[in-house]
Amino acid sequence: MTSSEIDGGVCAAEGFLAAGVAAGIKHSGGLDLALIVSEVEAACAGVFTTSTAAAAPVRVSKSRAGRGTARGVVANSGCANSVTGTRGLRDAEAMTEEAAGALGVSSEDMFVCSTGLIGTFLPMESVRQGIKEAASRLSPDDSEAMRAIMTTDTRPKRAAVELERGWRLGGIAKGAGMIAPKMAPSATMLAFLTTDAIADPSVLQSCLAEACDASFNRITVDGDTSTNDTVLAFANGRSGVSPSRRDLVAAFQSVCSSLAEAIVRDGEGATKFIRVLISGAAAEAEARLAARAVAESLLVKTAVFGGDANWGRVAAALGASGVEVDWEKIVISIGGVRLLDRGKVAPANVLSEARAAMRRYEVAIECKLGAGKGSAEMLTTDLSPEYVRLNAEYES
Amino acid sequence: MTSSEIDGGVCAAEGFLAAGVAAGIKHSGGLDLALIVSEVEAACAGVFTTSTAAAAPVRVSKSRAGRGTARGVVANSGCANSVTGTRGLRDAEAMTEEAAGALGVSSEDMFVCSTGLIGTFLPMESVRQGIKEAASRLSPDDSEAMRAIMTTDTRPKRAAVELERGWRLGGIAKGAGMIAPKMAPSATMLAFLTTDAIADPSVLQSCLAEACDASFNRITVDGDTSTNDTVLAFANGRSGVSPSRRDLVAAFQSVCSSLAEAIVRDGEGATKFIRVLISGAAAEAEARLAARAVAESLLVKTAVFGGDANWGRVAAALGASGVEVDWEKIVISIGGVRLLDRGKVAPANVLSEARAAMRRYEVAIECKLGAGKGSAEMLTTDLSPEYVRLNAEYES
Repeated sequence: MTSSEIDGGVCAAEGFLAAGVAAGIKHSGGLDLALIVSEVEAACAGVFTTSTAAAAPVRVSKSRAGRGTARGVVANSGCANSVTGTRGLRDAEAMTEEAAGALGVSSEDMFVCSTGLIGTFLPMESVRQGIKEAASRLSPDDSEAMRAIMTTDTRPKRAAVELERGWRLGGIAKGAGMIAPKMAPSATMLAFLTTDAIADPSVLQSCLAEACDASFNRITVDGDTSTNDTVLAFANGRSGVSPSRRDLVAAFQSVCSSLAEAIVRDGEGATKFIRVLISGAAAEAEARLAARAVAESLLVKTAVFGGDANWGRVAAALGASGVEVDWEKIVISIGGVRLLDRGKVAPANVLSEARAAMRRYEVAIECKLGAGKGSAEMLTTDLSPEYVRLNAEYES
Repeated sequence: MTSSEIDGGVCAAEGFLAAGVAAGIKHSGGLDLALIVSEVEAACAGVFTTSTAAAAPVRVSKSRAGRGTARGVVANSGCANSVTGTRGLRDAEAMTEEAAGALGVSSEDMFVCSTGLIGTFLPMESVRQGIKEAASRLSPDDSEAMRAIMTTDTRPKRAAVELERGWRLGGIAKGAGMIAPKMAPSATMLAFLTTDAIADPSVLQSCLAEACDASFNRITVDGDTSTNDTVLAFANGRSGVSPSRRDLVAAFQSVCSSLAEAIVRDGEGATKFIRVLISGAAAEAEARLAARAVAESLLVKTAVFGGDANWGRVAAALGASGVEVDWEKIVISIGGVRLLDRGKVAPANVLSEARAAMRRYEVAIECKLGAGKGSAEMLTTDLSPEYVRLNAEYES
């Protein structure tokens, strides 16, 4: 399959419209309400946070994902509508009703997503007005919608591809903190994906789940899993092309990976982009466990912030993860420099070489465990004093 | 049982001697080698890190703990002798041989512990000289020994109790970072405990394990489990008193809890002492999982640093932990103020009350899950920019 990256996000595929408005949910007065709509009924799929504290909008959207078809999603930033009980559920449902009314569709055809502060109620009057305004401003341009879902993000995130035979798949995402998506049938990151391909809902669901598992579920900023993580996909068939499952997965994977990387690059306070690569694990599940343990170790993250090629902290994180490691065979490289080679510590000049390599923005931490054939990758950031400052000042 | 806290540490119990010297392992030239010795053969017990990357001294000490009796321990700071392969193992054994030679005992009777940088070799000539010097300076005063095991600790840590009938139990500990002990039969914290009670080795082992599980295993500073965590206990019977198992456990628990708390209070960069209390969990194991999830959430820790009563982050951490929570019954209090009461969000004035309570050094985060009768406590610190700075500058 030939695919090429193109400009655009959720409106790259034909027949999708979007709008973003300032409804007054954010105290800053910034854009905070987005509407994304397919001009025609679309196959739909969704993956959601595994948190037992799943927010009201997650619960509402989850119950609708099974229907197989939908028209769009209404999403807000500035308030997560999470841990808000029955009132929160009513508010989430009311958002879909308001959007459905303005669009002339059924409320069951609309998904709802929220991101922002946990434990506060939505200012429903403002939300209703915002939805009406957004519905009146729908256009094939997602530049305001992608900004309207941002919270601590410093920049909007979108990606799209065009495939052979002319069908397209694109998406937008938000997320910078509370990022450690563990979604099921595998996300507060939010991502919305659209395609004009023809796809059966069950195929769409399995393709989305597979792509999320290989992208969003492989990133972590702070190890804190959100109550609102949601990824939704819509396929409206407007291109008239019915791609193979393999091509559909590949397209989803391409766009999801771009968006997942963009989230990590915009991680709160991040000064470095870290790629943790584990190979030689007893099984893939062990490799994933090891990759997450290294990626979420505060001592590894602070060492990278400090430009210190401290492979000993990597070894400690691997040891604590409980995964099988052959300490006689293990190889640990940082920045492409082997610091522990088959259990042997590299000489001091090699350590200086690794320190020099760590001055680059991207740092790879590679561990070959010597126990089997399982491998996994995890993307993360360093931990900076700025992360602490940001999250100490983000007042509830 | 009446017990009273007394001054002292490993030399509070009769028949124990200690010394601390500057062997030249630390670049700073500070005290870095400690020797703790019982004048007579003592029953011994030990609990060790569950890390699969257990350091050379851990492996040597573990193999000796089963013997049931010992004379003492030689410990150094400034080098963890971890991930150092067979050379590291030989060095750890050589430390026990040198100490045994200087004391006229068998090397099998000596434990060995190390803490400091991972992946560097011990300067064995200096270590040997240091051990000889320490052996020549043994005295019933542990004030230099307790300093000789410090790394990033800002202050030494000791505690002791005197029990009915005159027997005593005391200990010293170190630890400030890479603190999330998960020891088995249930620690780079190091702690050495001594008592002049009479105790059978197997009873001593089970009492120590039980006390550690209720103290050191309930603390976390940064969630990073060390390759060197070790707690050792020695009972030399010199008081002539043979306490009941219950009294022995209680004495261990008292001293271990004091030392564990002292480690958290000295946590790297810490500005707050946080007590996470979970009750109403489906089972104790669930309560512990929930307590650790809250205590290790970066977003909870940064909120406490910022003085923000952000109960929403506590809820998110509970949700992500996967433990059973009844969200209609849950109660979350911070600083003694109920912020989420049976699923209902407290009004804004209550939030201000909680913020005021958070100005205190000690902050309690209490969560009643409403799912059962399991409860657990976890002690931790906030996360400050200073923690990041310390660990970014701690060069390998």
